[in-house]
Order: sequence, then C-alpha cells, then structure tokens
Amino acid sequence: MKARVTIMLKDGVLDPQGEAIRHALGGLGHRGVAGVRQGKLIELDLDATDPEAARAEVARMCEGLLANTVIEKYAIEIA
Amino acid sequence: MKARVTIMLKDGVLDPQGEAIRHALGGLGHRGVAGVRQGKLIELDLDATDPEAARAEVARMCEGLLANTVIEKYAIEIA
Repeated sequence: MKARVTIMLKDGVLDPQGEAIRHALGGLGHRGVAGVRQGKLIELDLDATDPEAARAEVARMCEGLLANTVIEKYAIEIA
Repeated sequence: MKARVTIMLKDGVLDPQGEAIRHALGGLGHRGVAGVRQGKLIELDLDATDPEAARAEVARMCEGLLANTVIEKYAIEIA
C-alpha cells in the first residue's frame, strides 16, 4: 500500500524558499507569477493492507517525525 | 489560477534523504515501512487564465529552473 504525504508551511508562515523561487522565475522572464510556496512530498511504501489503519499510522508518523506541526500542515493520501 | 508541481527523483536514482527518513521511522517504532522517497511540492499562484497556456508555461519553468530533469521527474496539476 502506498501513502503520499504532502507537507506545506501553514498559511501566514513566511516561506523564504518559495519567495526565492518566485524571484528566480521573474529573473528568467516568467512574468505573471503572483506567489510561490514550496513544500515537501513524501511517498511511503507500506506493508499495511488496511487503508484506515495505514492512514492512522501515517498520521502518527507525521505528528512524530515528518512534519513540524507548529508551522507546517500535512495531508495524507492512501492509494 | 493555481498550479501544483510535484518533483520526485526518477526511479532508480538513489534517494538518501528518503532512506534517512525510513531509518528514522524504524527507530521510532514504525515497522512495516518498506520504502520512502522524498520529493518537492511547489505551488504557484499564476495570473494566467487559460489552463493550457498555464500548463505550458509551468512546464517551461520546470525544465528551466524547478526540476533537474537529468535525475528528477515532474508532474503538473492545474486547478
């Protein structure tokens, strides 16, 4: 079973990495980019076979290691 | 118009960051994680209004700046 975790900075948290990308895109001639936010994508290959159990396990992984929930939000997709 | 770009290492390219996460998850007691791959997620806020034009523009951004297409693959979602 595969799980895909997307981790983004929460709205309102300054994202200097995204801002640097936006600036670089402007320098390369890409006009019309109003904002850029950069996050992380983590794909997990799990032995679990029950989707609900897998989701709960991945949520524990996010809370304990993958995301800094003070400043980051995460979303889990199970496939 | 929003665009979401996911950038992952191509299959077969060693992912030491993902491997480090897998190892750390094991150390925290999360058994049953067979593999981890880490990638990047970039959310773009575009002025463009035509989805096809936006997709082509974002593809150029990926080829020119966002992804290293020698070792990375990217996927674009327009919303």
